[in-house]
Amino acid sequence: MALIVLKFGGSSVKDREHIFNAARIIGRWRNEGNDVVTVVSAQGDTTDDLIEKAGEITHDPSKREMDMLLSTGEQISAALLAMALETLGCPAISLTGRQAGFQTDRTYMSARIRMLDTERIESELSRNRVVVVTGFQGVNQYDDITTLGRGGSDTSAVAIAAALHAERCCIYTDVDGVYTADPRLVPNARRLDEITFDEMLELATLGAQVLNSRSVELAKKYSVCLEVRSSLTDKPGTIVKEVTDVEGMLIKGVTKDKNVAVINVLEVPDVPGASFKIFSLMAQKNINVDVILQSSGKPDCKDVIFTVPEPDADTAVSVLTEYLPRFGGRSVSVDKNVAKVSVVGAGMQSHSGIASRMFEALYESNINIRMISTSEIKISVLIAESEADRAVQALHDAFLS
Amino acid sequence: MALIVLKFGGSSVKDREHIFNAARIIGRWRNEGNDVVTVVSAQGDTTDDLIEKAGEITHDPSKREMDMLLSTGEQISAALLAMALETLGCPAISLTGRQAGFQTDRTYMSARIRMLDTERIESELSRNRVVVVTGFQGVNQYDDITTLGRGGSDTSAVAIAAALHAERCCIYTDVDGVYTADPRLVPNARRLDEITFDEMLELATLGAQVLNSRSVELAKKYSVCLEVRSSLTDKPGTIVKEVTDVEGMLIKGVTKDKNVAVINVLEVPDVPGASFKIFSLMAQKNINVDVILQSSGKPDCKDVIFTVPEPDADTAVSVLTEYLPRFGGRSVSVDKNVAKVSVVGAGMQSHSGIASRMFEALYESNINIRMISTSEIKISVLIAESEADRAVQALHDAFLS
Repeated sequence: MALIVLKFGGSSVKDREHIFNAARIIGRWRNEGNDVVTVVSAQGDTTDDLIEKAGEITHDPSKREMDMLLSTGEQISAALLAMALETLGCPAISLTGRQAGFQTDRTYMSARIRMLDTERIESELSRNRVVVVTGFQGVNQYDDITTLGRGGSDTSAVAIAAALHAERCCIYTDVDGVYTADPRLVPNARRLDEITFDEMLELATLGAQVLNSRSVELAKKYSVCLEVRSSLTDKPGTIVKEVTDVEGMLIKGVTKDKNVAVINVLEVPDVPGASFKIFSLMAQKNINVDVILQSSGKPDCKDVIFTVPEPDADTAVSVLTEYLPRFGGRSVSVDKNVAKVSVVGAGMQSHSGIASRMFEALYESNINIRMISTSEIKISVLIAESEADRAVQALHDAFLS
Repeated sequence: MALIVLKFGGSSVKDREHIFNAARIIGRWRNEGNDVVTVVSAQGDTTDDLIEKAGEITHDPSKREMDMLLSTGEQISAALLAMALETLGCPAISLTGRQAGFQTDRTYMSARIRMLDTERIESELSRNRVVVVTGFQGVNQYDDITTLGRGGSDTSAVAIAAALHAERCCIYTDVDGVYTADPRLVPNARRLDEITFDEMLELATLGAQVLNSRSVELAKKYSVCLEVRSSLTDKPGTIVKEVTDVEGMLIKGVTKDKNVAVINVLEVPDVPGASFKIFSLMAQKNINVDVILQSSGKPDCKDVIFTVPEPDADTAVSVLTEYLPRFGGRSVSVDKNVAKVSVVGAGMQSHSGIASRMFEALYESNINIRMISTSEIKISVLIAESEADRAVQALHDAFLS
């Protein structure tokens, strides 16, 4: 008898109809002879509604109290789903994150799982019950409720699958898998049958809609077979695993990220340690630096240009401006009208010519490339934000049509 | 430094405005130099909304899952109240029933408190925080969430006050105390400054609006000084304690209970044990029998007439009808158009003539008495439901004007 972990997102349990739909899916897995642990998110907009309630009280709530508040959302959906399962004749029990054994560090609102004590889950499974666990939450060493941050229910599901050596962890959502590009943007985007963990991580901007990246990292670490699947159709979706068919597609997807800003630090003296100072300032402020370009302009000077997440851009500029006199640069400026477009695929490791094909496709579409960044399974280009959608379509046509 | 326990009902924390009002009241107690533990109910209609959600799933939900569901209501209001307190500069922390140390028996939806481990509450108080505890809930020996039943937050508050030897337990609500009669019914009803525990218990139908009877029993057992007080005015309300001023009022209140039905079992053979069989049947079905009248009609026969809570009347009739052949009665019937009207007051113990004055007042109002029941501090009469309001007014005029 296999053990399966199923996770239902907020849209998949948003009302009576969807809860019973989820319960029927669970019932099917169980009737096929599997033990089933289910992880649920809060219903529909519940989490947003709770955040709004807190916002009526204060704009700066204690994070501990926020977790006390937010954790109720999953507790409600877990209880309702257990009721629906029992109504369908399927013995079930709901467990809070604490009851399910989730122990986390002390970081409220974005806690990390430290330990998962599966004793209670296993005891309920041995009594032939479907176990419904509240996603997104645990308790810290003070016995206080913590939450894992947005998308944390995926991580909860993968953690249970890893701890119990589940055969599969199915993430049920309202899309039927991972696509080669955003289907709203690229009409001929195709659903992938399989994708590797690394590709999935690189496809974060596509995957963010369906899969939290921390959960993918965890699944990779413990070799959990993940599947992204539609709760509407319950047809096979996209399997995320360590290695996929080597004869398969070179490129798995084209992504677009508009949440990027370019910081230009101009005419920095060309002495050792100058860029180091810039990037250590960014690190102190917890700002993630992505693509970096250094170029020589004037003699004895260089321009240091790099990207940061758009919400961090203003902080980056103000801290750099403050410290500019110390490392002697001329000016700091920011450009938020940029986008990062990437092609992703483990296959490109062993194939040359991907980059040139990519640049050619962009050239033919008359799209100017400002910066380039590559990894073993990804090539990203920085372009004007206004051209991003056209770039995605052109690259999808070149590699995936 | 005194310790004070404050309890805010659902109407006193129903929205932002009321939450801040409660927080300001808590702040005042604290600024007077008191340690404060606060118990909160779920906001406004939250509990009813959650019950409705469950009702959409099933008409017969598991009681365990209901408790999992319902307990979220208090968790939300506790977190919000703690946020409001911190916003006003008052250090605060919310605790679930479990964190606050409430251990209960295993009866879901109407659990009884078995033990209260105050370690966490005391530790938070010693850190100079206001402790906000979710009322109405605890955990059983399986570590599962239980609730104490409707009005259970009063019981939670009294239990904390008893365990911590609090100087006072203030029950904040939307009325300013206990009245001599329902003010909506009797315009000249007066607020009582003091009342004994026993009187408060007898005034249950008045008190039910403001005070749960289990909490009064618990307060009596542990001599907790209770006060019913308005969260709107925060003026002194009604103090409930062991002994009140002996020179005070003879009669403390007049109550009406329409939630009563009369069961008539006619022509039961007049042999030993006949009534016993009837009442043991009621006990088996957990039906509370109140006023009992046995009358002889035909020779060797008697009529057994008694009252039960109206919601239990149909069960009582059907079980009695089923067993009627065994004890040989002629017929079973029920009358739901009755009400019980009572005058309550510890003073009547030492004063004669209360009963005759009561019967005279009803006679003068032309109200027919069907059954009578007395205790040391109460006289109740059973009358036609249609005459109940008139009877309350007449008795209030006779004793309390």
